[in-house]
Amino acid sequence: MKIIVIGATGTIGGKVVEALKASRHEVVAAARSSGIKVNLDVQASIHAMFDQIRELDAVVCCAGQAAFKPFTQLTHADYELGLHSKLMGQVSLARAAIDHLRDGGSITLTTGTVAMHPIPGSASLSMVNAGLEGFVRAAALEMPRHLRINAVSPPWVRETLVKLGMDPSPGLAAADVAQAYVAAVEGSHQGKVFDPRGWAR
Amino acid sequence: MKIIVIGATGTIGGKVVEALKASRHEVVAAARSSGIKVNLDVQASIHAMFDQIRELDAVVCCAGQAAFKPFTQLTHADYELGLHSKLMGQVSLARAAIDHLRDGGSITLTTGTVAMHPIPGSASLSMVNAGLEGFVRAAALEMPRHLRINAVSPPWVRETLVKLGMDPSPGLAAADVAQAYVAAVEGSHQGKVFDPRGWAR
Repeated sequence: MKIIVIGATGTIGGKVVEALKASRHEVVAAARSSGIKVNLDVQASIHAMFDQIRELDAVVCCAGQAAFKPFTQLTHADYELGLHSKLMGQVSLARAAIDHLRDGGSITLTTGTVAMHPIPGSASLSMVNAGLEGFVRAAALEMPRHLRINAVSPPWVRETLVKLGMDPSPGLAAADVAQAYVAAVEGSHQGKVFDPRGWAR
Repeated sequence: MKIIVIGATGTIGGKVVEALKASRHEVVAAARSSGIKVNLDVQASIHAMFDQIRELDAVVCCAGQAAFKPFTQLTHADYELGLHSKLMGQVSLARAAIDHLRDGGSITLTTGTVAMHPIPGSASLSMVNAGLEGFVRAAALEMPRHLRINAVSPPWVRETLVKLGMDPSPGLAAADVAQAYVAAVEGSHQGKVFDPRGWAR
């Protein structure tokens, strides 16, 4: 399949690119500052990205920002960041992808475990992730041309915990997280939120 | 208790006011165009509302708009409406309420059944409702001064179905929906999403 991965240079995205290539797919890498350049916060940037690629079978997104900080310190701007980047950035990507995917193609977005399992500091991120899961479940009911839409909800990623100077032992390796994206692309799931802990090899 | 109800003139809000008064609470009615006037889309309007009221025990919100239309007809502006009105309007209300509630007071917001049970047409509304539920679950972990935050997720309301010219038989009467708000205000729940079908009298 011909697959575009947005956020291809990120901790998860990089491993998703590797895993899809290992499964013999043709991968187009997109990111803010390398490969095909795209900024999900800007709708025109999303359309410009799709105008450069033809005959896509799958769109995978591992990009989008949101704030993570104590509830009483979160500002209105922190909430707006998550709404415009991780939430509406991916919603806009999905809406645009519909016009550019081959019949039966798929869209796979990224949420995160705090959608359903919040922790202190996650008020904005939980809102964004849960909202995206609500969108995916609903949009799946109305996708045209047998297109599919799903989301992967990564738990804490081992490499990220290391970067943050935290104990990495509860984390899942990014390469294992990536297997859930491969499953979403290659499977026939519709409107599903994947927990990568069920897909690690 | 002294309770402000925002959206007090709405189908659900009106019955919530009645139910709270029937339980001998002091109710302050707020709405866009009557009682204490407030527009949840405007943060300054929320702060102006709270500046008019002292010693509140509970804030109940039955207000907020979002679009409901077929997925392929939803525009970016439709999504933005729900994000700024029903989602961030209620989040901004909750954040402001924290500075105005007595110790141990409560905040009760309104989501809706399509958060977890989407139907065709609900892509934007499901996103908004699910996002709000994610926010409530997470914010509940960090509420100061023993404040509580919960949400009520109404099913389809009988009166609304009648207004829409649809079969009202699967709907729950607004007066029954209102009992879940009374339970949220009077109980000790924290971070809970109430299904009114479990609380109708």
